[in-house]
Amino acid sequence: MAQAEIGLIGLGVMGANLALNIAEKGHRIAVFNRTPEKTRHFFETAGALADRIIPCETIEEFVAAIRPPRPVIIMIKAGEAVDEQMAALVPHLSGGDIMIDAGNANFRDTRARFQRLEGSGLTFIGMGVSGGEEGARHGPSIMVGGTPESYARVEKVLTSIAATYHDEPCCAWLGSDGAGHFVKTIHNGIEYADMQMIAEVYGILRDGSGKSASEISNIFIEWNKGRLNSYLIEITGTVLAAADPLTGKPMADIILDKAGQKGTGKWSVIEAQEMGVPATAIEAAVAARSLSALKAEREKAEALFGAENAAFAIAFGPDLLKDLELALFAAKIGAYAQGFAVMAEASREFGWSLPMPVIAKIWRAGCIIRSQFLDEITTAFTAAPDAANLILTPAFTAMVKETLPSLRRIVSAATAGGLPVPALASALNWFEAYKRARGTANLIQAQRDFFGAHGFERVDGVDRPHGPWGSGAAQQ
Amino acid sequence: MAQAEIGLIGLGVMGANLALNIAEKGHRIAVFNRTPEKTRHFFETAGALADRIIPCETIEEFVAAIRPPRPVIIMIKAGEAVDEQMAALVPHLSGGDIMIDAGNANFRDTRARFQRLEGSGLTFIGMGVSGGEEGARHGPSIMVGGTPESYARVEKVLTSIAATYHDEPCCAWLGSDGAGHFVKTIHNGIEYADMQMIAEVYGILRDGSGKSASEISNIFIEWNKGRLNSYLIEITGTVLAAADPLTGKPMADIILDKAGQKGTGKWSVIEAQEMGVPATAIEAAVAARSLSALKAEREKAEALFGAENAAFAIAFGPDLLKDLELALFAAKIGAYAQGFAVMAEASREFGWSLPMPVIAKIWRAGCIIRSQFLDEITTAFTAAPDAANLILTPAFTAMVKETLPSLRRIVSAATAGGLPVPALASALNWFEAYKRARGTANLIQAQRDFFGAHGFERVDGVDRPHGPWGSGAAQQ
Repeated sequence: MAQAEIGLIGLGVMGANLALNIAEKGHRIAVFNRTPEKTRHFFETAGALADRIIPCETIEEFVAAIRPPRPVIIMIKAGEAVDEQMAALVPHLSGGDIMIDAGNANFRDTRARFQRLEGSGLTFIGMGVSGGEEGARHGPSIMVGGTPESYARVEKVLTSIAATYHDEPCCAWLGSDGAGHFVKTIHNGIEYADMQMIAEVYGILRDGSGKSASEISNIFIEWNKGRLNSYLIEITGTVLAAADPLTGKPMADIILDKAGQKGTGKWSVIEAQEMGVPATAIEAAVAARSLSALKAEREKAEALFGAENAAFAIAFGPDLLKDLELALFAAKIGAYAQGFAVMAEASREFGWSLPMPVIAKIWRAGCIIRSQFLDEITTAFTAAPDAANLILTPAFTAMVKETLPSLRRIVSAATAGGLPVPALASALNWFEAYKRARGTANLIQAQRDFFGAHGFERVDGVDRPHGPWGSGAAQQ
Repeated sequence: MAQAEIGLIGLGVMGANLALNIAEKGHRIAVFNRTPEKTRHFFETAGALADRIIPCETIEEFVAAIRPPRPVIIMIKAGEAVDEQMAALVPHLSGGDIMIDAGNANFRDTRARFQRLEGSGLTFIGMGVSGGEEGARHGPSIMVGGTPESYARVEKVLTSIAATYHDEPCCAWLGSDGAGHFVKTIHNGIEYADMQMIAEVYGILRDGSGKSASEISNIFIEWNKGRLNSYLIEITGTVLAAADPLTGKPMADIILDKAGQKGTGKWSVIEAQEMGVPATAIEAAVAARSLSALKAEREKAEALFGAENAAFAIAFGPDLLKDLELALFAAKIGAYAQGFAVMAEASREFGWSLPMPVIAKIWRAGCIIRSQFLDEITTAFTAAPDAANLILTPAFTAMVKETLPSLRRIVSAATAGGLPVPALASALNWFEAYKRARGTANLIQAQRDFFGAHGFERVDGVDRPHGPWGSGAAQQ
């Protein structure tokens, strides 16, 4: 049998599906798993694709089966396991070989791994893969970080297995070392915000107007035909329509309101904070998941405060539904604008030159946040690649102008009615503060100078950085 | 001359004031600074206090001047300088000596330093000092982390120099290693929220009702006589009344609206995120400072979106002013409740047994957030030390019930009027979500199970963790 074009280590759900995807696209692939039974089972159930799969039971065999320079995808649990796998692999590799971590790594680990291999002749790619199990099998969105040379070696395979949007593959090289995993992290942060905002709108409809899961499902199905069209809106319509096989009740009503999370949402907030980029809608969404997990405390609090059924003063007629749709759209723009701003700053900080239009492009299909909206972002950033923020591009300025009044009305009404809308409100407040040339931080600077002599700038540019309170004022 | 009871390295503004404070309280102190000129100048300008000060120009001299076991306060720039100073000092110290880092260290560094000294016979104290220059000189709030034994050695000196509240010193041992610096970090995070919320209320009055700085000053002066009574409300009244000596205009109107920040606000948010504790009001405050720094972008945005002068529909009569006062009070409770929840979780995570009533106690005077409000927190946590959250204590449940309607009205009105209120809204939304037993995370769990087979819990406890969408549903 001819040597394989690529190798893959780790035949868990994601790895197995990725391997089948690669084989299906015509590439010969060598596979290896720590437990050989898994490798055998994978090979035996691969059907016609088995022709292009070389199952290997030892690392030696695996490495020998791949044509040098060897690209080796590692798809195992993120963290120390990756370092261990790399350590086990390195002695068998030779100059030019490429290790590709396709797991959900923290980009800081990816940077460290990349740097560790520098000068060794081996190279490292950190590859963000979005789309879950089915994405891995039939077309994920692929975000690559590494050297351009190592990407050139694997580009053909990767673009062939990626999702496509109007025949363009959702796969791209984004920059050196951790660029791919960083972009994947922010993708997930945006996904948290997207989902939380949908959940808040669901809450307004359920708790603010007493609508049933099936009625709300119909609203989302309808919205999915309009500008909100996206995978997440689509599946919201689907899951809200589903019935619980055990009770016959709406499935959504049976599911406990405790959301889980993995690390990426948290990481995206932490990195935004590290760089000082406001990402309030994403922060609110991650915090909302943490808060959801405090179920026992929330039950105790409701018992103490009393259950309030928000009496929605406004009748939920077609006007308010239209407002709700536009409000969700406006808030979504806020979350994406924040996420892209975080990436722009990271690009400067880590020297990546992240291509904003390309990132929007490869998110248009394959990944969880895929939508036609991302095509509009692609267009906006292509026309104005140097815009300091998404909402400063002409297309998005216009969209925000059109939809912001709806977001104000909805947040104002929900707030008056006692309904929680943390992510919608955070996005709204970000807009309000962002588009205001004169904010209120002058007062904060006055206070800081008063108690800590921190100094301030003046609006007239005069260099007189302290107030008339004198040094005696500082912190009596 | 008799040996000193304690030594201090670093005669910058904070260190010099702390040394004078120590001498004034009757303790003999040895001082050292990298540049001997500074030491000489300090000694020569110490007046009558010079009798108790031993100026030293070499480390050898300095160490010899202190009675063993020697407590040595290090008050220099946080970061690597502290490690360098420790390395220079260690060879001269002997068993039982204590190095006390009084700078604004990240508690993770403090933990590492503490652990590095374990088994060496030397010990380490991480000491948070709040109160700025004047606090250092006349009575700061002091938060100590280290071994109980090392604290016992310095307790007399520290309690004598701390601020007092009704004759109780604002100084306490809070736990091992980084406990003191962690609590100081959260103190600062709360301070950010406190200041931001005040700035938002100022913005409502300035931009929503066209009030002048002097009118707003009077409102804060009045509020300072009521339940908002606190140092920050007091100085808000003061700085808003001040006139710019150059132009005669209100000083606050001349100060640029770009707020600076040091690391602690950011750290408090990052640690909250690391532990998964919702701290949304603090996050919003830190993000608001970052946003204020984007002055050029904000000017560009205002030019594109147009300056909107929020037309406040509601006349600003006495009723709305009362609402504003209560809204600020409610939001403040939210920020403190979040900050204390972060500390409670950190206490579990790092094994500190942080004493919540004691923390509230030592913040009642000396530090920037000092207030009568902290006395109420002290009382509430003393009565209910195991409360999962501040707002679950009877006193605070009652206060939130009383004031939350005002916060709703203010946030709703500000939102409708286009005024940014990110921290007020974040606090409000936290209340709304926290006291709701049934949230909307069930929808998020349904989505996650649909696209990623992540599974969920059911309200009826039945172990059937997946929806009826089947595996085929996952991520088409």
